[in-house]
Amino acid sequence: MHSIVKLKPEPGAVYQEWQIPSIGLNDVLVRVEATSICGTDMQIYDWHEWVRDRVKPPFVMGHEFAGRVLEAGKEVAELREGDLVSGETHIFCGRCFQCRTGNAHICENMRLRGVDTDGCFAQYHALHEASAWKNDSKLSVEVASAQEPLGNAVHAASVTDISAKRVAVFGCGPIGACLIGLCKSFGSTRIFGVDVVDYRLSLAKEMGADVLLNALNEDVSSEIMRQTDGRGADIFFEMSGAPSAFEQGFKALRPGGTAVLFGLPSKRVEIDVANWIVFKDAHVRGVFGRRIYSTWYKTAEVLRAGMVDMSKVITHRFDMEEFSKAFALMKSGRCGKVIMYPNGRKKK
Amino acid sequence: MHSIVKLKPEPGAVYQEWQIPSIGLNDVLVRVEATSICGTDMQIYDWHEWVRDRVKPPFVMGHEFAGRVLEAGKEVAELREGDLVSGETHIFCGRCFQCRTGNAHICENMRLRGVDTDGCFAQYHALHEASAWKNDSKLSVEVASAQEPLGNAVHAASVTDISAKRVAVFGCGPIGACLIGLCKSFGSTRIFGVDVVDYRLSLAKEMGADVLLNALNEDVSSEIMRQTDGRGADIFFEMSGAPSAFEQGFKALRPGGTAVLFGLPSKRVEIDVANWIVFKDAHVRGVFGRRIYSTWYKTAEVLRAGMVDMSKVITHRFDMEEFSKAFALMKSGRCGKVIMYPNGRKKK
Amino acid sequence: MHSIVKLKPEPGAVYQEWQIPSIGLNDVLVRVEATSICGTDMQIYDWHEWVRDRVKPPFVMGHEFAGRVLEAGKEVAELREGDLVSGETHIFCGRCFQCRTGNAHICENMRLRGVDTDGCFAQYHALHEASAWKNDSKLSVEVASAQEPLGNAVHAASVTDISAKRVAVFGCGPIGACLIGLCKSFGSTRIFGVDVVDYRLSLAKEMGADVLLNALNEDVSSEIMRQTDGRGADIFFEMSGAPSAFEQGFKALRPGGTAVLFGLPSKRVEIDVANWIVFKDAHVRGVFGRRIYSTWYKTAEVLRAGMVDMSKVITHRFDMEEFSKAFALMKSGRCGKVIMYPNGRKKK
Amino acid sequence: MHSIVKLKPEPGAVYQEWQIPSIGLNDVLVRVEATSICGTDMQIYDWHEWVRDRVKPPFVMGHEFAGRVLEAGKEVAELREGDLVSGETHIFCGRCFQCRTGNAHICENMRLRGVDTDGCFAQYHALHEASAWKNDSKLSVEVASAQEPLGNAVHAASVTDISAKRVAVFGCGPIGACLIGLCKSFGSTRIFGVDVVDYRLSLAKEMGADVLLNALNEDVSSEIMRQTDGRGADIFFEMSGAPSAFEQGFKALRPGGTAVLFGLPSKRVEIDVANWIVFKDAHVRGVFGRRIYSTWYKTAEVLRAGMVDMSKVITHRFDMEEFSKAFALMKSGRCGKVIMYPNGRKKK
Repeated sequence: MHSIVKLKPEPGAVYQEWQIPSIGLNDVLVRVEATSICGTDMQIYDWHEWVRDRVKPPFVMGHEFAGRVLEAGKEVAELREGDLVSGETHIFCGRCFQCRTGNAHICENMRLRGVDTDGCFAQYHALHEASAWKNDSKLSVEVASAQEPLGNAVHAASVTDISAKRVAVFGCGPIGACLIGLCKSFGSTRIFGVDVVDYRLSLAKEMGADVLLNALNEDVSSEIMRQTDGRGADIFFEMSGAPSAFEQGFKALRPGGTAVLFGLPSKRVEIDVANWIVFKDAHVRGVFGRRIYSTWYKTAEVLRAGMVDMSKVITHRFDMEEFSKAFALMKSGRCGKVIMYPNGRKKK
Repeated sequence: MHSIVKLKPEPGAVYQEWQIPSIGLNDVLVRVEATSICGTDMQIYDWHEWVRDRVKPPFVMGHEFAGRVLEAGKEVAELREGDLVSGETHIFCGRCFQCRTGNAHICENMRLRGVDTDGCFAQYHALHEASAWKNDSKLSVEVASAQEPLGNAVHAASVTDISAKRVAVFGCGPIGACLIGLCKSFGSTRIFGVDVVDYRLSLAKEMGADVLLNALNEDVSSEIMRQTDGRGADIFFEMSGAPSAFEQGFKALRPGGTAVLFGLPSKRVEIDVANWIVFKDAHVRGVFGRRIYSTWYKTAEVLRAGMVDMSKVITHRFDMEEFSKAFALMKSGRCGKVIMYPNGRKKK
Repeated sequence: MHSIVKLKPEPGAVYQEWQIPSIGLNDVLVRVEATSICGTDMQIYDWHEWVRDRVKPPFVMGHEFAGRVLEAGKEVAELREGDLVSGETHIFCGRCFQCRTGNAHICENMRLRGVDTDGCFAQYHALHEASAWKNDSKLSVEVASAQEPLGNAVHAASVTDISAKRVAVFGCGPIGACLIGLCKSFGSTRIFGVDVVDYRLSLAKEMGADVLLNALNEDVSSEIMRQTDGRGADIFFEMSGAPSAFEQGFKALRPGGTAVLFGLPSKRVEIDVANWIVFKDAHVRGVFGRRIYSTWYKTAEVLRAGMVDMSKVITHRFDMEEFSKAFALMKSGRCGKVIMYPNGRKKK
Repeated sequence: MHSIVKLKPEPGAVYQEWQIPSIGLNDVLVRVEATSICGTDMQIYDWHEWVRDRVKPPFVMGHEFAGRVLEAGKEVAELREGDLVSGETHIFCGRCFQCRTGNAHICENMRLRGVDTDGCFAQYHALHEASAWKNDSKLSVEVASAQEPLGNAVHAASVTDISAKRVAVFGCGPIGACLIGLCKSFGSTRIFGVDVVDYRLSLAKEMGADVLLNALNEDVSSEIMRQTDGRGADIFFEMSGAPSAFEQGFKALRPGGTAVLFGLPSKRVEIDVANWIVFKDAHVRGVFGRRIYSTWYKTAEVLRAGMVDMSKVITHRFDMEEFSKAFALMKSGRCGKVIMYPNGRKKK
């Protein structure tokens, strides 16, 4: 089958033939209809430092996808041929303390699809039923593929009550943009979208941000204070990983407020613990991945009700063989979610 | 001044002159621009059983209002002449265990405006600064007056996360209707409005209910089960006090769901504790009044953002001298919120 | 093997031979070292109304046990021969909405061990690995068997913060007694134990209750009010299912407090919703079973730290063939937890 | 009256005469029976950087105290001559957003006793009734004075459920020691006490720590991991402000755990946001002061029940005129809480 393969321990990847995977008793084989590119894929492609220590080429890249079940193992209980499935990237063991206490998203033996296993940038993909999510059959394959970033946003939006709150979202890439859409749908009364790329701020605007702040030109925290009667934002969502966002966001957070941290800084961040957290009696929540499967159920509700317009977040589409163009676009930052079709665009 | 006075321990009330109240050091005197009628006022008017044991005629009726400050006592710190204020009906002591732990809404020494003190169905009203709420000066006096029922709804909508949830609201009078508006604004994905009066179901529809169920004609719990894939409503709001609503609502509640109880049944209700609460591992929350003043701040945000269209909830207007017509209309159930103007409609 | 079998659709049971169960790929076969009798077993024995509609004799009774693994199916991942295991009575499907969102204890396809399947009152028992709990190898088999009622108490004690709180426990059988022990260990400052059987009140006393109230002789709610400075109990645990307990408990609950409902009334209970729940802005929590497996982990911590002295709760021991004596004792109410040994007492 | 006065903008203080304060309508005048020294007092004494920017000498120092009411202003409602009162250091306005929403401890107009106003290191002290706490008349004056640090610990212990949890307390001065006592009383199953001063570790031991770790000699995070089966501490309490404590504590925190931050680092701390917070899906809570007055009520319960042995925390006593010895002792770190008597030790 055609696949994007990380062939060697170096930057780049190749489009080449790969063996169609076989399935075990509890697995399904899926014909991949759409895939989407995540920042993690970019880091693997670019051969970032953490990637070198973890992955073992050669392997098929990719973890976001949607596809139709072609074949189901004998012990598969719920899925049937033709079902439209997506996959949870975080492949959990199901047996550790975290899995057995409802926290499979931080499984002690976690493996990542397309990092520790063969991924989905291929015509076919095999996965265990436990890590498969069955979609509403009417969902578009592009949206079904992009549910993971939406799910990240749903998880972030669920750790504190955002209704009738003033919220600041730092980082307006696809996940931040989805989050802004959720804030709008869940009743936030003033939404600040902050980024350094104007393209992304436009996306934030389309998703419902009330105020756009380009951190290159604005004194962000002062501006948020000014537009919240000097009180500050009730909630600060850090979706960028940029060190400066922590400073601006925590300064703009009102005492008693909540900071939700999702972005991954590449190194340690200097935090003014006394003034930003202790004196403010602040809540700070790390948010990782998606809750398995609470977040997926909530995401499905959001999609069913048409609450987040994913057509604005999904901005570009490519046949999979054009992957190098797709990756270059991602790198430019001038895009939302980018879709690739392993089996061609017409056949979906 | 002109006032509606409960003159004698019997049904009814009279429109008559009453002494303009004097103010203490911490009080403000307000010119009342609009008042609204609550179910409690109806019960006082009709001389219900609980009323007989509690009130001591003669006294001025009424507790929902908005007005302009005419005069402020010497120790008043924040309010100024001309400020548009409403009043919290629940006059708390500020010194008991509940008040000192952030729960003034269940003060151990609570007195009620227009029940235990003179009320606001009058041209002027005096109140302690601590029980006054300063409104945005641009808010309409009608909406400012009707903030208490909206506040009840805001409190009910805040005790559990309603975003991306399927909710059933039993009782679509003004408070239930406001609640439906909030559910819509805060992202509930399927809203069932249940009542026995079609007028109110129309109101529910206008406020955003997705499904209307008249309990006289429908098997409500079965219908809710049917329209939620057999799972049931995530949240059951009981806003009616009707015994049958408890049965229908709890039956329609999904295991692990939350029941929010606001309506006041006139007598004990037979509850199937085992099947409705224990086996479901359900959360049940009694909701009383409004949190003082968290709910008011949240209500102000909701109004500022235009999230609940109060013009649909406020359905009728009267000069205060026409009070008997207003009360008769309230009794018919064919209305939303009813406004009375003690100082005439033109002068607001 | 020797077993206690519900042979016919009528009261009683017989001690007789039964086929040793075979095991599937994911099952383990256990030699049962100790079992304990639950109220549910008594109802099956007595042929209660709900039992008639549900069970299908003949089947082996019993669900609380501890035993050693004799043999493990090929796909069993964690358990090994010799492991000391107990079993979660609530056999969950692992695939429904509740199971996939961390709420397996209210699984939509729940089956009960010893009710819907063959149980553990036998020399051997087979169970799926997913419903097995591996104990610390040093735990006594009696305590390991009685972890389910302790787990019920742990679940009840975990739904609200009981530290530095005044709590009232209605129903001081084994589960209530364990709960009292937990309240003591988790820092409740005044513990009221309420029952109608003096034997149980003695047990409550031994487990740490500060005040004992026999509801036959005392005006329970008045007494609780009197001993809490007129404020009432912060938390009311209903562990008895007795209708009068609801009245006494809710009356004694302070405004803003929490009622935890675990007991199963045999019919509907008349609840004064207005005065007991709404005006009090009360939290009410139904509590079912144990959270799978959060409660079990917490229970293990409690046992490891020696926080609840189970030797006081486990009051009687029998060889399994003496089961009719054991059941008669249970019926008298003059006991705590009753242990039966299917393989004899010496061989444990 | 005799007082300890910060006379000039420089290190040190003087013991001298000062005017007995007059009282307003809502104030009480108190004869100070015992005072205690806090780290903040030390920083004022030593003339730390933040102090220079804030305080305006001359003023009476001190904020922790207990005393008897000598005289009450005319509008004082609850306090009477002879009442034993302590004072909340955080003097809140009662009118801002935070005060009106139950968060007076983070009042927008906060003033600090003994920092922004005259303090209590004097024979007499005047305070507004709203910032006074009436003690149980049988409480010792030393313990009544030391309720604020105990209250800090109570607040910290209340932001997450610590029952049956493994907790690590970094910093075992008086507040950390009180916290360890609370963890013990509230059912934590393994308590790690961490400090760099052996004297404090002894104190931690006496208060109930199960494991003592001197961070100068031990690889603290590794040791905690080792003693928690490789899982880590469920809760990490940072009570020291030391930068290294953040690193050790966050590393030892298990995924899904909670970090409670109370200590005040003197400068920014380098935080590995990705590994310590995001990947762990961790909760982080800033904790400031005490909740007013929920924490005080809870503290009173704790003291009434004898749950924390304050006699172990209070290690030294001085007449107030020996204040320089007391401050020198505090500086050495070889003490718990230090009491000073402004009116002599015998007269309490």
